[in-house]
Order: sequence, then structure tokens, then C-alpha cells
Amino acid sequence: MLLYPFIISLLGFAFAIYLIKVILSKETGNKRMIEISNAIKEGALAYLSRQYKTIFIFVVIFVILFFLIFGLEQSVSFLLGSIFSAAAGYIGMNVAIRANVRTSQAARKGIYDALRIAFDGGNVMGLSVMCFGVFGISVLYFVLGEPSAIIFFSFGASLVALFARLGGGIYTKGADVGADLVGKVEKGIPEDDPRNPAVIADNVGDNVGDVAGMGADLFESFCASIIAAMIIASAIGKSEWIVYPLIVSSVGIVSMIIGRFFLGREKDPQKALNNSVFSSVLIGIVVLFLVSYFVEDFGVNLFFASLVGVLAMIGITISTQYYTSYSYSPTREISKASTSGTSMNILSGFSNGLFSTAIPILIVVAATIISYKLFEPNGTFGVAIAAVGMLSLAGIAIAIDSCGAISDNAGGITEMSKLGKEVREVTDKLDAAGNTSAAIGKGAAIGSAALTVLALYSAFFEVTKIKIVSLTNVYVLSGIFIGGIIPLIFSASAIKSVSVAASSIVNEVRRQFKEKNLLKGKEKPDYAKCVDICTRTAIREMVVPSVLAVFAPLAVGFILGPEALAGFLGGATLSGLLFAILFANSGASWDNAKKYIELGNFGGKGSEAHKSAVVGDTVGDPFKDTAGPSINILIKIMSTVSLLFASFFLAYHLL
Amino acid sequence: MLLYPFIISLLGFAFAIYLIKVILSKETGNKRMIEISNAIKEGALAYLSRQYKTIFIFVVIFVILFFLIFGLEQSVSFLLGSIFSAAAGYIGMNVAIRANVRTSQAARKGIYDALRIAFDGGNVMGLSVMCFGVFGISVLYFVLGEPSAIIFFSFGASLVALFARLGGGIYTKGADVGADLVGKVEKGIPEDDPRNPAVIADNVGDNVGDVAGMGADLFESFCASIIAAMIIASAIGKSEWIVYPLIVSSVGIVSMIIGRFFLGREKDPQKALNNSVFSSVLIGIVVLFLVSYFVEDFGVNLFFASLVGVLAMIGITISTQYYTSYSYSPTREISKASTSGTSMNILSGFSNGLFSTAIPILIVVAATIISYKLFEPNGTFGVAIAAVGMLSLAGIAIAIDSCGAISDNAGGITEMSKLGKEVREVTDKLDAAGNTSAAIGKGAAIGSAALTVLALYSAFFEVTKIKIVSLTNVYVLSGIFIGGIIPLIFSASAIKSVSVAASSIVNEVRRQFKEKNLLKGKEKPDYAKCVDICTRTAIREMVVPSVLAVFAPLAVGFILGPEALAGFLGGATLSGLLFAILFANSGASWDNAKKYIELGNFGGKGSEAHKSAVVGDTVGDPFKDTAGPSINILIKIMSTVSLLFASFFLAYHLL
Repeated sequence: MLLYPFIISLLGFAFAIYLIKVILSKETGNKRMIEISNAIKEGALAYLSRQYKTIFIFVVIFVILFFLIFGLEQSVSFLLGSIFSAAAGYIGMNVAIRANVRTSQAARKGIYDALRIAFDGGNVMGLSVMCFGVFGISVLYFVLGEPSAIIFFSFGASLVALFARLGGGIYTKGADVGADLVGKVEKGIPEDDPRNPAVIADNVGDNVGDVAGMGADLFESFCASIIAAMIIASAIGKSEWIVYPLIVSSVGIVSMIIGRFFLGREKDPQKALNNSVFSSVLIGIVVLFLVSYFVEDFGVNLFFASLVGVLAMIGITISTQYYTSYSYSPTREISKASTSGTSMNILSGFSNGLFSTAIPILIVVAATIISYKLFEPNGTFGVAIAAVGMLSLAGIAIAIDSCGAISDNAGGITEMSKLGKEVREVTDKLDAAGNTSAAIGKGAAIGSAALTVLALYSAFFEVTKIKIVSLTNVYVLSGIFIGGIIPLIFSASAIKSVSVAASSIVNEVRRQFKEKNLLKGKEKPDYAKCVDICTRTAIREMVVPSVLAVFAPLAVGFILGPEALAGFLGGATLSGLLFAILFANSGASWDNAKKYIELGNFGGKGSEAHKSAVVGDTVGDPFKDTAGPSINILIKIMSTVSLLFASFFLAYHLL
Repeated sequence: MLLYPFIISLLGFAFAIYLIKVILSKETGNKRMIEISNAIKEGALAYLSRQYKTIFIFVVIFVILFFLIFGLEQSVSFLLGSIFSAAAGYIGMNVAIRANVRTSQAARKGIYDALRIAFDGGNVMGLSVMCFGVFGISVLYFVLGEPSAIIFFSFGASLVALFARLGGGIYTKGADVGADLVGKVEKGIPEDDPRNPAVIADNVGDNVGDVAGMGADLFESFCASIIAAMIIASAIGKSEWIVYPLIVSSVGIVSMIIGRFFLGREKDPQKALNNSVFSSVLIGIVVLFLVSYFVEDFGVNLFFASLVGVLAMIGITISTQYYTSYSYSPTREISKASTSGTSMNILSGFSNGLFSTAIPILIVVAATIISYKLFEPNGTFGVAIAAVGMLSLAGIAIAIDSCGAISDNAGGITEMSKLGKEVREVTDKLDAAGNTSAAIGKGAAIGSAALTVLALYSAFFEVTKIKIVSLTNVYVLSGIFIGGIIPLIFSASAIKSVSVAASSIVNEVRRQFKEKNLLKGKEKPDYAKCVDICTRTAIREMVVPSVLAVFAPLAVGFILGPEALAGFLGGATLSGLLFAILFANSGASWDNAKKYIELGNFGGKGSEAHKSAVVGDTVGDPFKDTAGPSINILIKIMSTVSLLFASFFLAYHLL
């Protein structure tokens, strides 16, 4: 059975190469467009290479450490995990920074062609993630013969993801907020105006944050959920189930490839994307049912558990849309509150974010209970399979999310190249669809992180053979409380880093406006300087919180012991999920409340309400794109580290 | 032994009556001052009577329900608890609304006399709370002979506290934010300007929120911690310890009375208050040591556990000061960030709030572990005694908090009566000291809520005889996640209610400014209208969340069972504490960051930085005075309800 996932992953790679060729064959537009696109490309690649260099140091340290502590297999697994994650991010982003200008050029002809290119670019990123994951895990399982060492592959992916999400998040929002504060608020020039020195950095940020960062995040969830399920299957002695998670994921790859051809020709790009997504999901469900039902080793319960994950993902997505899209009342109420002043906008968005945590958490709880009950007494395996089922949609989630980032970039290039109002309208439509996709992508990332962590949590119990972690034990209770504060400290530091980066950008942009004659377009701004500031700040600020994330569970495990550690993970997961959803949804709803006003409601652009909404949006930026997404990785990496060292904590701990 | 607490509570009452006489003997000032003071008095009493009428309906329902389900003892205990809580709040507030104008009048002569009156007013509130608590519990224990039914007394207190905190919080912040948004931001008139139609409502709010609300909150913690300790002592078969919590509390009353005479004659009112607080604490510690050491039934470990609670309270207080006072860098950084715009102010304050959760939680964890270890294998009793030790400082905490509210009111009366710059400077100094006291009071309320909930939690395990609540159980895990969302929904709804109230006030104040010639002082504003709007909104908005708080644990207990309920309480406590601290500290630091700018830093009053800081302050208002404090009660009332119905959940549950 292992052959199928392996072959399908190769097939997926082949299809990704085909898509790359298709994209590269498109026109790149006029000289000005190419110039801008090259500036974005250079900035993005320069950042990524510096980011990878920094990560490389940590990878080398861990490779040596793991070789000394665990052995060759673990060390190599870890190395492969980190390399594959970096490779998936590198390939995906390289395609995105080439697809952006081609999307912009195609937008001069019509919306369908433009959407096609942006979506194909997103598909390359999605396929890279899924194929590198399935390929790596299949090969490792084939070579090693048993799944326990493969968790080191997942840790490699985690480590890269942590840096990519955090560094990328600090970069993108430092640039975005800094550009907006001087450009929009102080100088009154529009978004993506070429006179703004931070405009290229802002566009680079979309690529390093939303494409590479998001890809690394979901690669990590994707691999961790598969590996957790394999480990649990092995621990409960159901070896015939070990390969099932890989089969589910392969079905995800196949259905994604087919779904790509169902991109609708609708005028509304959102509907066109929905066509593709729905057909993918439907095909996936049918194929999965057939495989689970007819293959003797499996069974229809495996299908149902996977289906629970898929349905949970859909439920979370709908809830995210409800709370963050301006088509629904919660976001419109924020727009309305903006008319009573900035503080009412902030309070309204924040309380909307608080409310929005309930439904996703209840969905996760329901999915956990149902999938657990399906497999009792081996319920933990059911939970892990639900996670795998949910993550079989990772590729599509990444594809539409990256499609949004590419469209956003295309809009920027269109604006800066002055391609005219009609073209801008096309890219604006793409951009609006992209915003919704981005919110969905974030919902998907959080939901999948939740189930992945629960799967890793289950694997932790199976590996340590701990049967009881009781709240009546004072150390467990203490662990819960200590775990609970970690996501808060982590996200506080992420928000602070964005402020640091944004303040530096504000100062630099103010300086350039003062020293150069930029507003009348007589002189050209120094874009590279802003790119450089963001790069340096992001790299510098991402290190300390990342180290905290890796070492906190080690400290708790070695001092308070494995049961307190289980409490710690529980507390961190609870507070992490609550804050991740709060940050993601309040941020997205502030953003869209502003957009709703810009459509002409409650006074429209330039009104007092709009000014308040712009403040809300800049508060929400680091919430939704830095703090929120980084928490996903934080709780995953802490669970993975705990699983890696589980047997050590059992043997050695202080109290 | 039971005789001592009983006698000391009577002595405390006598001393409170003496203080009331002292206060009432002071001059009330000129006609204008009396007029304003009467308006505040009327508004406050009108609100309190409507609030109590609404609560009365719920009290009657529960009295009948408890009589039918449990019996006469429980029903009467509950009734007494609610009556005593209401009485303590009523007396305390009645004194506060008489002390305010007398403080203002005394301020014309000097700071010491003014502080003396404000502090005596606070002492009456503090003594009422402690004496009603000790008196009620002693009498009930004497009559009933065993502690289990007395938890209904605590529930009565909880119910009143919930309404008082939530309703009072909505009232005070609706008025405050509404008054500021039109007065300060739109019309550019100062705080407490008599031309602002919402100014009386704002001053009423200080009394119903900060005095009556805070008093009810700590009354509840105070009683619950004592009763939890008594129940645990009884459950573990140590009947000689049952009376110890009452002894600790009596020591608190005595040391508070003595400390009152140590109020310093320093020019700095903060230092003067510190003198009194420190001598109280020191005297309390020494007396408690002697009692614990020399009374045969007790033992020095009881003293140490109490001391852990006292030290934890001091630690939390210091941490609160560090994160919220403008004497330290975190708050100054928020002031500095305000120079880069409103969003930087918001982000900086919010991330400061996130950071500030770590130390208080770690202090609570350390206090829990140490007090648990002191009494192993009956560690739960140690935790409960630490809570009692902490709460023995409740009276002082209330006294300095109410002193702040009275000073705040005195400042308002001084401003509105135009008593001149010199008098205003005196009341401003009192007000500044009051702000720090208020932050300390909030820290104390949260810290004590944390330990009280842990004590109730322990009592829950002792009563249900549940030995294991394992995180490996899927229902327990689900309970944790469901519990985690309750404080978020609850606080979201509280914040929303404040927005509703503030918006109504904004509209009313705008209408009055438009229809009347207020700015030039030709016509008098209609204060009563704003008072009425706040009253109606607060009463209406407080009901639904309160009902949710009472019924959520019942639903979880009867559907998912007592173990899931234990998980639910754990999750609610964790997320509740995190958000309560976040709300309290971010709100206080925004407030003080604004004050720091007003002292002339970063541009001073009227600068762009100041405008940003004012927005931050109004965002923080409902955070720190409505959402944050209400969460305290929420987690306490849910724990109390769980304890009340514990045996029913054991016998009947669905899953």
C-alpha cells in the first residue's frame, strides 16, 4: 500500500512542474512592471535566504544534538523535515513572485485569465507542501520500517515553520503598518503608491509572510497529523492502519489536481474559486469512501473519522466567514461603531473577536468527541485520523491563500505601473476575493493546528503510556496555569516586534519624505533601505521567542515531570487556541469593516468613521498576521518537542 | 473558639459606626457643593435600589428552589448571604456618597484632613464587608453545627456580587466613556466640567461601580475562601481546624482597626496610606503567628499557609504596580508609543497587558504548590488556608480602593463647585493616589479570586470524593475547552453592553449640547436624563450574562457529568484569570500612560500623543472596570454553583 502515496507524490510533483511551465509561458508585461516585479523578487529572495541562513545554524545544532542523543535515523529525519519544509516554501514563493506580474499583465485582458494564473501559482505552493510531505514520510517509513523516528521529520518542519511564520509575520506587518502610518495617515497618499518608500517592502511582505509563512505552517500541521496517527496506530498494535493517513493525504493530492480544472468562468472570482474547492472536496470524499470501504485492512469507520475532520474544517471556515466578512452583521456593526469614534471601533472589533472563539472551539470539541467515540477503546487514533482528514484539505487551503497573496501583489504592481482604472478594478476584485480566502486560510490553519495538537497530545499519552493526568494533582494544575501564559508572552513579544519594525519604517519613510522630493515624483524613493530594515528587524526579533518555544516544554518536563508537562500542553493549547482565534478574527473583521466603509457606507473614504476604521485595521494587522498565526506553530512545536523527549522526561525529572 | 470571631465582628461593627459618626460630623461645604453631592447621592441610591429590586426577583426564585431541592437550612443560608452582601454594599456606598463632599470641603484646609475622611469612608466599607462575613458565617456555623450548608451563604453573596459588579461596571463605564467622548474629544471641555450633562452620571458610576461593586466582589471572595476551608477541614476529618479560617479573618479585622490609626501625616497621600497598610499587615502577621503557635488545636503550619497567601497578595500587588504605574518603564513605553499614533498606543498597551499576566499567575502557582506541600496529604486544606490568609487583607484592599473612589468624587465636586486651583491640586493628589490604590485593589480582587476558586475547586473534589479527573479522558478535555470560552463570551458581552450604554449617552449628550446653550453656561444640563439612561441600560444588560454564568456549569454537570465539569471549571479558571489580568492591567496602564503625558511628557496635554492616549484610555475603561472585574465573579460563581450541586451531578448525568 505504501507504493501508492509514493507514486502519487511523484505525480503531484510532475503536475506542479507542469503548472510552473504554464505560468512561466505567460507574458510579463511592460518594462515598468518588470522593474517593480524584480524589486519585489529581489527583496523576497534576499529575505528568504537570510532567514534560511539563520535557521540553518539552529538546524545544524539540532542535527548534531539529535545524533548524539538519539542516533542517525532521528538526526537524518529531522534534517530532511527541515530541508523539505524550506524547499516547499522556497519553490512556492519563487513561483508566487513570478506569477504576480503575469497576473497583473493578464488582468489587462480579463478577470478569468488573471485568476487562472494566480490560482495556478497558489496550486504550485499547495502541491509542493503536500507532495514533499507525503514523499518524505513514505520514503522514511519505507526505509525505517516503523514510525516513531519520523516524528523528528515533523520537528524539522516545525522549526522551519516557527521561524518562517514569526519572521515572515514580523516582516510583513512591520512593512505594512509602517507604510500605512506615514503614507495613508500622514501624507494622505493611497495604498501601493510608488512614491511611498516602504511600498516594495510591503509587497515583499505578502510573499514572505502569506505565501512562504503560511505554507510552512500548514506543511507542519500536515506532516505532524500524519505522523501522530502513524505513531498511535503502531502503539495500539494496529499496524494495518499505519499507512492509512498517507492514503488519505494522497487522495487529497489527487482531488486537488482534478479540482484545479474545475475553476469556474464566473465573473465573481470568489464563486469561480468556490467551484474548484467544492469539486475537490466532493471528489476527495467519494474517493476516500471507496478506498476505506473496499480495502480490506481499512474499514468504513476510518472514512467517517476522516469525514469528521473534513466537516469540522468546513464548519470552522463558515464560522470564520460569518465573523469576518462584511457580508454579515458582526463586521458591519464594527463599521457602524466606527462612526462613534476610534475607541468604539476598537472595542467593537475586539468583542467580536472574543465572541467568535466559541463556535470553532465547540466544533473542535464535537469533532474530538465523535472521532474518539468511533474508535473506542482506541479513541486517540480516531482523533488523529480526524486531524489527517482535515489536513487532506491543506493543499487547497494553501492554494487559495497564496492565490490571495499573488492577487494582492498583482494589485500593487498594477497600481505602481499605472495600468489604469479598468485593470485596477479587475485586480481589486481579485484582491477582495483574496482577502476572504486569506481569512479562510487562517481559519483552516488554526482549526488544523487544534486537531493536530490533540493528535500529538494523544500520541504523547500513547508513547509515555501515561494513563492518568489528573487535575486533582497539584503539579498538573500548576502545569496548566504555566502553560496558559506561554502563548500570551509569545504573542505579546510578536506584537512588540511588529511595533519595533513599524516604528523603524515610520522613521525611515518620514526621513525620505523630508530629505527627498518624493510627493511630486521628482525623485525616486530608496525602496531597498526599507526592505533592508524589515529584513534585519524580522530576523533579529524572531530568535528569542522561538528559543522560548523550544525550551519551555523541556524545562517543565525535566523539572516538574511528564504529567505536569501534559497539563502544561493542555493549558498552552487552550489559551493558544483562544488567542489565535481572537487575533485572527478580530484582525480580519477590523480589516473588512474598513473595506465596508470604503465601499461608501457610513460616510465612505475620508470620513471620520473611515479614519477610525484605519486605526482599527492597523491594530488588527499584527493580531491577524503575526501574533495569531505564530501561536499555531507555538502550540504545535511545544507538543512535538514534548513527544520527542517523552521517554527522557519519564526517566529523569526533578520533582 | 467560635466566640472570638463573633465578638470581634460585633466590635468591628461598633468601630464602623464610630467612623460613620466621625465622618458625618465633618462640614459639608457650601450650597453648590451640597447641591452636586445631593445629585450624586440621589443617582447612586436610585440605581442601587433598582439594582437590588432586580436581584430580589432572582433571590426569591432561588430561595424557593433551594427550599424545595435542599431544605430550610440551605435556603436561609442563601437568603442571609444575599442580604448581608447587599447590606454591606448599601452601607458602604451610603457612607461614600456622604464622605465625598466632606473630603472636598476638607481639601480646602489641607491634604491630611481630606485623606483622613476619604480613608475613614473606605474603612467603613472594608469593615462592613469583613464584619458581615465573619458575623454571618459564625452565627450560621453555631446554629447549624457543620459547614456544608454554609456554602449557600456564599452563593447568595456571589449572586449579588455578580449583578453588582456587572451592572455597576456597565453603569460606570457607559457614563465615563460617553461623557469623555463628547466632552473631552468633541467639545474640548475638561473632565468633571459641570456643563457636561453626563458628569453626574459619571460620578454616580464611581460609587456604584468602584465602591458597591468592588465591595460585593471581595465580600464574595472573603466568604467563599472561609467556607471552602471549613468544608475541606470537615471533609478531611480535622474538625479542630474548622474554626481557624474565622480566626484568621478576625485577626484581619483587628489589625485593620489598629492600622487605621497609623495613617501617616506625609505630604504624599500614597505614602500616608502605605503607612497604615504596612502597619496593619505587620500587626496581622504577628498576631496570627501567636494565635497559630500557642493555641493547641492549630499549629505553626496553619500560620505558614496563611502567610503564603499574604505574601502572594503582596507579590501580586507589586507586580500590578510595576505594570500599571507610570513610575515604571512599561507604562512609560505606552506613553512613548502614543507619539507614533493611536494604533501604536493600543498595540503597546495590549502587549503590556499580555506580558503582565505571567508574574501573577506564577505567584498563584507557587503559592498553591507551597501551601499544598505544607499540608500533604491534605494539601487542599493548605491551598484553602492560603486563600483565607490572602483574603484577611480584603478589608484593607477595599478601604484603599473605596478611598480612591471617594477622592475621585471629591475631585469632581471640587471642579464642579469651582473651589479654585489650590483645592483642586489637593484633590488631584488624592485622586492620583486613588488611581494607584484602585489598580492595587483590582490586583487584589483578581489574586484573591484565583486562590478562592482553587479553594472551591479543592472543596469540590473533597465533597464529590472524585480522586481522578484525567486529561486523558475525552470528556474532561472537552470540558476544559468549553469552560475556556465562557469568560470570553461573558466579557465580550460586558464590553458590548458598555458600548451600548456609552452610545446612548453620546447621543443624549450631543442632543443636549445641540438643543441647549450649555457651552456658554447659559442653560443648565439635564443631569437626571443621563443618570436614568445608565441605570436602565445597566440593569437590562446585566441579566443575560448573569443567567449564563449560573446555568453553564449546571448544563455541563448534568450533561457531561462531574468530571467534565471539573475540566470545565479548570478551563474557565485558566482563561478567566488570563483575561481578567489582561483586562485589568492593560486598562490601568492605558489610563496612566495618558496621565503621564498629561504631566507634560511627550508633548503634554493637547498634543497628538495625548489624543492617542485618550483613545487608549477609553478602550481600557470597559476592560479594567467592567469586563475584567466581572470575570472574577464569573469564575467564582461557577465554582460555587458546581459545589452546591456536586452531589446531584454525581447521581444524575447524561453521558
